[in-house]
Amino acid sequence: MRLRNKPWAKERLQNYPQYVIGNPEDWKGKWHELFQNEHPIHIEIGTGKGKFITEMAKKYPNVNFIGIEAYTSVIVSALDRLIEAELPNVKLLNINALQLESIFTDGEISRIYLNFSDPWPKNRHEKRRLTHHNFLQKYQHILKKDGQIHFKTDNEKLFEYSLVSFSTFGMILHDVILDLHHSDYDGNVMTEYEEKFSAKGNRIFRCEVSFMKKDERK
Amino acid sequence: MRLRNKPWAKERLQNYPQYVIGNPEDWKGKWHELFQNEHPIHIEIGTGKGKFITEMAKKYPNVNFIGIEAYTSVIVSALDRLIEAELPNVKLLNINALQLESIFTDGEISRIYLNFSDPWPKNRHEKRRLTHHNFLQKYQHILKKDGQIHFKTDNEKLFEYSLVSFSTFGMILHDVILDLHHSDYDGNVMTEYEEKFSAKGNRIFRCEVSFMKKDERK
Ligand SMILES: C[S@@+](CC[C@H](N)C(=O)[O-])C[C@H]1O[C@@H](n2cnc3c(N)ncnc32)[C@H](O)[C@@H]1O
Ligand SMILES: C[S@@+](CC[C@H](N)C(=O)[O-])C[C@H]1O[C@@H](n2cnc3c(N)ncnc32)[C@H](O)[C@@H]1O
Repeated sequence: MRLRNKPWAKERLQNYPQYVIGNPEDWKGKWHELFQNEHPIHIEIGTGKGKFITEMAKKYPNVNFIGIEAYTSVIVSALDRLIEAELPNVKLLNINALQLESIFTDGEISRIYLNFSDPWPKNRHEKRRLTHHNFLQKYQHILKKDGQIHFKTDNEKLFEYSLVSFSTFGMILHDVILDLHHSDYDGNVMTEYEEKFSAKGNRIFRCEVSFMKKDERK
Repeated sequence: MRLRNKPWAKERLQNYPQYVIGNPEDWKGKWHELFQNEHPIHIEIGTGKGKFITEMAKKYPNVNFIGIEAYTSVIVSALDRLIEAELPNVKLLNINALQLESIFTDGEISRIYLNFSDPWPKNRHEKRRLTHHNFLQKYQHILKKDGQIHFKTDNEKLFEYSLVSFSTFGMILHDVILDLHHSDYDGNVMTEYEEKFSAKGNRIFRCEVSFMKKDERK
């Protein structure tokens, strides 16, 4: 999917500035102005073709969603969905999550979704995993104090790695589901990968974590 | 198994004071004297019929093992194994884990094993689960600062509950395995329940946790 070259994709993204924010650094600290409301902002990192974020945006009109996807050839599909759905509460950013801190100011974000993040199974690629300590540090900066990360994946090794990474970073697990599609979790919105891999019979793992220490909570 | 009445069981335990310690409170703070060495002490809570602890004791002669089991009718089977194996580095206690702090002094224990603990699925029985905060508090007292808890189970709900319980208590997850028998984990010693439930095709979950905070570890 990623390798399919789409030379027209970049231009298409530029043609929809109401959906795809071309200069996101300019909005650092001012995202509420862009959305013209004070609703909480949830971001999804690695949005892919945008199924999750557009469905979430329909379901939760009082939340602002920002989808972040590094690959131009992938995010154009998310744009197509958005054009069709005409949703005022979704924006897309065609950037790498490495840049998060130049896009959002401290505490600007209320929730981060990580859905079926690339597993990068080789040890030497560990730093690319979106749940590596280096990324957690960025998330900690841009998230509100009580902000949460909601993570789901079918990749067992990535889930194991991530639980340990969250915990050794000092994060708190608030909810863990070891078989999402056979649990009593209500209102799950499926992603593209989730549809594909659960249809193959893969188990889906899910957790909610925060940076808040027990004592600070309530 | 538990309901089968074995009136002779108590007497049998008393007949083997070299294996079953009848007055464990008397050894509080002095367990190394009892074992007559300075080897680390590992306890298993809910030892059942003792397969795990006797095999571990054979495999690790330089570790002292103490098996704790509330049910007399169950622990007699562990005693039978022990009599046959003639192991100097295992003792059995026929007590309830609620009493741990009257048996062991602060930091006397190096590791705690929880294997296939009773799941107590009903909410109103939550406090009986061996990974409830009330039990974690006891474990924290008797464990050395860097001591670990090694927990395995085939019960998905109990594992989910326990990960969250450990984390919200402030414990750190060092290792999580979501499918022990299909992982590259080496040297696993199976328990009776593990043999039974993995034979049925159940997935086995495992984790290692400690009370040590990240900063203290270095
Ligand atoms: C496996 S796909 C999952 C897509 C979608 N979340 C789903 O569940 O269907 C992972 C996506 O994350 C994107 N991605 C990976 N690392 C990223 C990063 N550092 N910054 C932005 N996007 C990233 C990839 O380009 C890819 O589209
Ligand atoms: C499901 S069995 C598992 C036995 C063994 N660990 C295995 O894996 O085969 C759980 C055992 O823990 C014991 N147990 C449960 N709660 C206990 C407590 N609070 N103190 C001592 N033993 C307990 C039960 O009596 C039972 O024998």
